[in-house]
This record gives sequence, C-alpha cells and structure tokens, in this order.
Amino acid sequence: MLNGGHLVSDEARRRVERAIAETGYVVSSSARSLATGRSGSVGFLLTESQQSLFDDPNFATLYRGAAAALARRDLPLVLMVAGTPAERAQILRYVGAGHVDGVLLVSTHAGDPTVQALLDQQVPTISCGVPLGAEERMGYVTADDRRGGRDMARHLLDCGASVLGMISGPADTSGGRERLAGFLDVVGEGHDPRLIEHADYTREGAVRATERILSARPDIDGLFVASDLMAAGALEALAAAGRRVPQDVLLGGFDDSAHAGSSRPSITTMRQPFDRISEEMVRLLLDLIDGRGTAAVVLPSELVVRESTSR
Amino acid sequence: MLNGGHLVSDEARRRVERAIAETGYVVSSSARSLATGRSGSVGFLLTESQQSLFDDPNFATLYRGAAAALARRDLPLVLMVAGTPAERAQILRYVGAGHVDGVLLVSTHAGDPTVQALLDQQVPTISCGVPLGAEERMGYVTADDRRGGRDMARHLLDCGASVLGMISGPADTSGGRERLAGFLDVVGEGHDPRLIEHADYTREGAVRATERILSARPDIDGLFVASDLMAAGALEALAAAGRRVPQDVLLGGFDDSAHAGSSRPSITTMRQPFDRISEEMVRLLLDLIDGRGTAAVVLPSELVVRESTSR
Repeated sequence: MLNGGHLVSDEARRRVERAIAETGYVVSSSARSLATGRSGSVGFLLTESQQSLFDDPNFATLYRGAAAALARRDLPLVLMVAGTPAERAQILRYVGAGHVDGVLLVSTHAGDPTVQALLDQQVPTISCGVPLGAEERMGYVTADDRRGGRDMARHLLDCGASVLGMISGPADTSGGRERLAGFLDVVGEGHDPRLIEHADYTREGAVRATERILSARPDIDGLFVASDLMAAGALEALAAAGRRVPQDVLLGGFDDSAHAGSSRPSITTMRQPFDRISEEMVRLLLDLIDGRGTAAVVLPSELVVRESTSR
Repeated sequence: MLNGGHLVSDEARRRVERAIAETGYVVSSSARSLATGRSGSVGFLLTESQQSLFDDPNFATLYRGAAAALARRDLPLVLMVAGTPAERAQILRYVGAGHVDGVLLVSTHAGDPTVQALLDQQVPTISCGVPLGAEERMGYVTADDRRGGRDMARHLLDCGASVLGMISGPADTSGGRERLAGFLDVVGEGHDPRLIEHADYTREGAVRATERILSARPDIDGLFVASDLMAAGALEALAAAGRRVPQDVLLGGFDDSAHAGSSRPSITTMRQPFDRISEEMVRLLLDLIDGRGTAAVVLPSELVVRESTSR
C-alpha cells in the first residue's frame, strides 16, 4: 500500500498513511512488498551439501535453466542450500518470512523435513523429482525414471550383456527407486542381489559399489549406473580392476551430464530433458503462486549411445 | 511494528494497528521485517556469468566459506548471480527491497554499475577484491596480489627462468592489475610486451594467450599465469606445442585452487587464504550492518611449490 499498490482502497491507504504520518513511523524498504504481498523473486532450494552443488553438474544445469526461465519473466532466482539441520532452519525461517514468493525444491530424500515444513508454511513449492511421501500434496516435475531404467537395461542386453549388474541411487530418492524398478522390470525380480548395489550419487560411492559387485560377481559383463557422475566412478573402478569398457564390460549411465561425453570411453546414457524440467518447474510454480492449481509433470528421457556400449 | 517490534512506540503501533483494523488491510508476511528492518539474511552476489560460478572453483570456495561463517552466526546466505544487465536489474530490485541485510560482492570489474547501484541504495556491502573506482567508499577483503605477483616472478627466476612471460587477468580487475604490477616490479617496466598477454580468467582464454606468446617469443622458458584455471589452459597449450613443463618451461599459477594440485604436472602457485577472506568479509559485513564502520583487509598469499617448477 505504501507505494500505492492496488490491493487496498485509496481510503484504506489514506487512513493508514495518515496514522503513519501522525506517528512518525518510518517505513522500512521491505514495506514495498506490502503493496503486493510479493517479494518478486523465487528461491532455488537445494537440500544437499554445498559441495554437491558444485560436484554434481545436474544441479548447476537445473539452476541455470530455472534462472533463464525466470529471467524471461523478469524474476530473479535466489539460490539457497540447506544441507544441514542448522542451514535448513535458517532457510525455512527466511522463506517463511516471505522473502521469496515460491520455492523450486531440488533433490529431496524421502522423509526430508523440508518438504513438510514448506507445506506447513504454505509456501508455493514445486519439487524436482517425486517428493516421496508428499506426492499427493506437492507438485513436481520428473523424468520418467522407471521407463528410463527399462530402456537402458534393454539396451545393455541388446548389446550382448549376459550378466547385468546395476548401481542404483539411494533407496530414499525417487530416481534411486524408479530407475532400479525399471531395471528389475527387464531382468526380473529374481535377479541375483549381488549384482545390485546402492550408492549415494557420488563418484567415490560408485567406485566402492563397483568393487563390491566385481568381487561378488567377477563374471559381470554389463553394468547400468544410475547417474553419469557415478558411472565415471564405475569406469575408474573397472579400469583399476583391469576390465576394459566396452570390450569386457558394457557400461550405461543416466542423465547425459558433462561426465558422459567427456570421459574416455564416452558413456552411453539416458538423457534427462533438464531444460524442459526447469522450464516446467518454473511454469508450475508461477501458476501456483498465482493461485492456480498444481500438477505432476513426467517427461521422457532419451537413450544416447556412446562408446561404452559400442563394441 | 505489526508483530510488536521495538522500533516504534506502543502508541504509534496502536494508532497504525487501529487504522489497519478499521480498513481491513491484510498484513503480508513480509511485514515481519518491519519489526526490525532486518531480513535476517545476507546475499552472496556474483557479477559473473552463471557458468563461471560452476567453472571457476574460487567462487565455490568463497561461497562455501561465507556460508559456513554465517551459519556459525545462525544467518542464511542466499546466492544471487547478476551476469547480465537484466539479471543485475532484477537482483538490485530485490536487494533494494530489503530482502537481504547486506551483500558480499564477488568479482567486480572496474566500472561495474553494480558497485555504484549498491552504494546509491545504501546497501551494506563488502567487496571481494578491491572495488576499483570505489576503493574509498566500499570496504573490501583481498589477497596481497601485488606481493603475490612479485613472489611468483622471483620464484620462477630463482628456478632458472631467463625469458619470463606472464598471462595476466583482465586489466579492469584488481587481481588482473596488481598481479601484473608485482610481476613488473621484478622483471622491470621495460620488459618485452610480447611476453605479456591478458586473458579473461577462463581456460580457453589462457590457451589462446599462451599460443600468442609462443608464436611471438618461442624462446620463452618461464610463464606466470594469474590464475590456476588459466594455468591449466596454459599447460594444455604448452603440451600441444611440444613444450614440456617444467623441463622446457617453468610454470606458475595463482590461487591454489583444485586445478593446481590435480593437473599433471601439478602446478606451483600462490595460495590465496580463501577461508580467511570469506571469514573477514562476513565479519566486516556484519559490522557494517550493525552500524559500525567499514575497512579494507589485505591478506598475504603463500608460495606453494609443486612439480611445474621442480626440475
């Protein structure tokens, strides 16, 4: 109201302005947002460590895509990282105070209290990936991870793999669950569990997981890794064990991040449509902020064949 | 005032609350910050491209250090990137509306309008590096770039370099100017200008600059590069030209970023005290927000000898 917004009548504005003038109350600059109740910005909230923001290229890709989509609408994007309970409390306090109009929530684990806290505060939020446990209450955008897992498993079999292993993401993430589910759709629920390892989406975690699979099933000749960053780690571990890719072991990743194209050999992967994901997240969030309903958007991923499956 | 802050008298609050009650004006959550005039947060503002945020490890290091220093004070850090005039306008509008209490300004070029805009808006701001053109009006924290440039030039000469070149940073940045000034302090103002090239702190820029120096002065046997990221590019260009490091050309970088230790050969560099830089920036900014004066803090950098100068 103090800068003449249109949400209050002229009379209301005059009454309050008169009272303010008479009391000598000094207006803080943040009173501007009283005019619209809007901060005129959107937050990009990553619930991972600050390190992962810079280590995992997917986060950078999503951030840049979201910033570009918002810039076209003349809205700034502020990046917030809540990797620890202390950071989470600080960020939620900031968000709850209205300093952003909505949140693009990236990388949520099942039971991440951030999801419930944002719902409790009624902060318009769109999740990147399925917000496990809140699918019904929070809109989201995700690649079709189950179909992607199926497509890669089939591709590795089609290329000649007979003993097919998988390094999955964390079981408390939708990508971790769904890509594995797609893999099992193809190889069957009865698949040797020693051929399946979970890792934490880090390169180091994938190195150790690959070593475990190699020691349990040295006859493995095909490996699906649920992210390209982890696939780079698997490539490292396979080379250290004297296994050649693709001659001895066929390797498939997921994401089509920078690692897939730059590693030697280059890595066959499922391309996530990151540009569309961030564009759709922004569209859904602005709809939500404007009081329209929310939605779940599932986008297809695409097989990109490279050297790691080309014999 | 609306949540009973102490900046206005009870009478003032009652008067305004009465007027608001009578007019049915609805309070926005952002009215909370009216109580204290504080948002309870600090902004990390990078005036470079979003890409550089993820390509140049120095920015990540500074961001993580500042976030850690603020977390100890229970304050969230929000990251904002203003790499284009449109982004700058959006961010300045957001900052000007009081959504952060102060700004840690990173990577300013001389004449960057962001500096003047923040000064005009009277936003408490501390610059990382000397804010060229505003040194007298804005506090800052910087490594002693001139001394660092001198130390590295001397080290390369001590290691046996006789034809010493330099790839400097942009002439409109304090690091670009001061590291070169330190280099010239040692080799003399009359140094062959063909041995000195400016680049833009990118790997690609350094590759081209190295190629220019090699074609102009093929007899070069020592090269000081003003950042480790650029030094990695120089290493690439030297190898492509068949020059071995350190046998044919001694190479020195600056920063002690991840590139310095991980490249082959590892790169001798000047270690910037990034942890102290971010800690000091936060300390100065919180002093400024609390109404205390500002200051310029200059911290020493330290020579770290690695393979690139070890014959």
